[in-house]
Amino acid sequence: MTVHFKKAAIVGIGLIGSSLARMLKEYNVADCISACARSEKSRKTVLELNIADAVFEKPQEAVHDADIVFVCTPVGSIPAVIKEFMPFLKTKAIISDVGSVKAEIIKKVFPELREDVFFVPAHPVAGTEKSGPENGFSELFQGRWCILTPTPQTDRTALSVVRAVWETAGMKVDEMTAKRHDTAMALMSHLPHLIAYTIVGTAADLETETRQDIIKYAAGGFRDFTRIAGSDPVMWRDIFLNNTEAVLDGLQRFCEDLTVLQKAIRQKDAATLQNWFERTRRIRNEVVEARQDQPENEKLLLKNKG
Amino acid sequence: MTVHFKKAAIVGIGLIGSSLARMLKEYNVADCISACARSEKSRKTVLELNIADAVFEKPQEAVHDADIVFVCTPVGSIPAVIKEFMPFLKTKAIISDVGSVKAEIIKKVFPELREDVFFVPAHPVAGTEKSGPENGFSELFQGRWCILTPTPQTDRTALSVVRAVWETAGMKVDEMTAKRHDTAMALMSHLPHLIAYTIVGTAADLETETRQDIIKYAAGGFRDFTRIAGSDPVMWRDIFLNNTEAVLDGLQRFCEDLTVLQKAIRQKDAATLQNWFERTRRIRNEVVEARQDQPENEKLLLKNKG
Repeated sequence: MTVHFKKAAIVGIGLIGSSLARMLKEYNVADCISACARSEKSRKTVLELNIADAVFEKPQEAVHDADIVFVCTPVGSIPAVIKEFMPFLKTKAIISDVGSVKAEIIKKVFPELREDVFFVPAHPVAGTEKSGPENGFSELFQGRWCILTPTPQTDRTALSVVRAVWETAGMKVDEMTAKRHDTAMALMSHLPHLIAYTIVGTAADLETETRQDIIKYAAGGFRDFTRIAGSDPVMWRDIFLNNTEAVLDGLQRFCEDLTVLQKAIRQKDAATLQNWFERTRRIRNEVVEARQDQPENEKLLLKNKG
Repeated sequence: MTVHFKKAAIVGIGLIGSSLARMLKEYNVADCISACARSEKSRKTVLELNIADAVFEKPQEAVHDADIVFVCTPVGSIPAVIKEFMPFLKTKAIISDVGSVKAEIIKKVFPELREDVFFVPAHPVAGTEKSGPENGFSELFQGRWCILTPTPQTDRTALSVVRAVWETAGMKVDEMTAKRHDTAMALMSHLPHLIAYTIVGTAADLETETRQDIIKYAAGGFRDFTRIAGSDPVMWRDIFLNNTEAVLDGLQRFCEDLTVLQKAIRQKDAATLQNWFERTRRIRNEVVEARQDQPENEKLLLKNKG
């Protein structure tokens, strides 16, 4: 299925929003792209880099006459933003989002939904630690998964349209319940980010000499953690505030396992350590076999290299 | 200072040893490179890929007549290996190592040292999650730090020679005490690895559906953690058994900080979360400014791309 829109709106034009805008342009999915950015700096960047055809401060201006609206703001503001522009949508408009948490968003958006517009909750699972419209690129989504979390009320045609957009972006698309999505993401993405944020903070609190050494010599391990912990603070604050239960449950399991390894180190229990590390190496191999091992950063690196 | 050896020996020819061997050949640092590998498979690979001129099963055979010997085995076996080949070294030979833990190695090696040979403890801080001689490459060390941890007994000339080798490999070289090195590494490398090993293990224990989802959709966060947790099990077992005190101390600090964030999530304390994440983003920026942000994997990627 191919899709084409006369006008697509992107509300919130950071890394994901601007990558999507670039993709819609390059693949000729929309004749006109209208963007909304709250900050003047972002609006300037969007125009300078020609990321959208028009850019507005207020969501209602951006969504005017749009066939489809992608909300790409931090998770915490998605329901409020949708509520804000709802009266200004044309009839039969499709609203979709890119939030990393789905159940909370669905819970808050559905009661606000007009009967003549459609909402398709979606999560393109792609990104880098960078934020801002200047860091987006149209290939960001290629080869990665997009997860749609429709409810029984979701319009099937609108669902197919959103699926087609992400397939055009090069994504593999799956559907599942919001709960299943949120549980998997808590372990796969949210908890690793929380842990990376924690340990980089721990390092920041160290005595001056050790702290300076760590930054100066930063190598594998800490370097990877700083990359993760360099991710957008507001985006991640909102994720933890909106997927609280699943994250805390994952954290509990993680802490239990950490205690096991802590004890093994204290008791110099070589067998427990080695068995554990061999088991995790097998998981790495499964990820590589699932072809999920190439970071988005490397795609960009290869692209820029030509 | 440039150095040249008639014969260099590399005992333990995995990722680091084989990268060093390739570098010594490509930069014409040694006329002859002799390697030691315990496994027949590794010996075969070394010969097939022409990584060394000769390869032996026993360390004493590899070190015969060598001007310098690099011990590149896992940390736990470095002292025993050095003790094993000690009687077979020629007089004035230099022994160096690449272990990620320094105090324990120094403590065990110095009492065994012959008076007519020199030992220079070193740690080239570079690597990827891959192991084995087939995964080495001569550029691995470029632009990264090598830390030398001499004691007051370390011969100054031998120290300069080892420094020159790593500078030839493209490394920046610093000197510090073994204790300072081990403290920094515990936080910068050992603890992040422990945490990555833990969470990937936590994921492996989940109910089937969630476990499968996590591997199938693996994106930033978990994907990065699986890469770290795919590192060599024996190498890392030995690191934790030999830097126990500093790792457990770092772990204690980490757990305290994790509890703070756990509480902030449970209480939906947005300000604490956002402040924390903004602080860690600044640390990331410091790492980028220190030019320590490019992973070795990317160098290899760009190299293979041509």
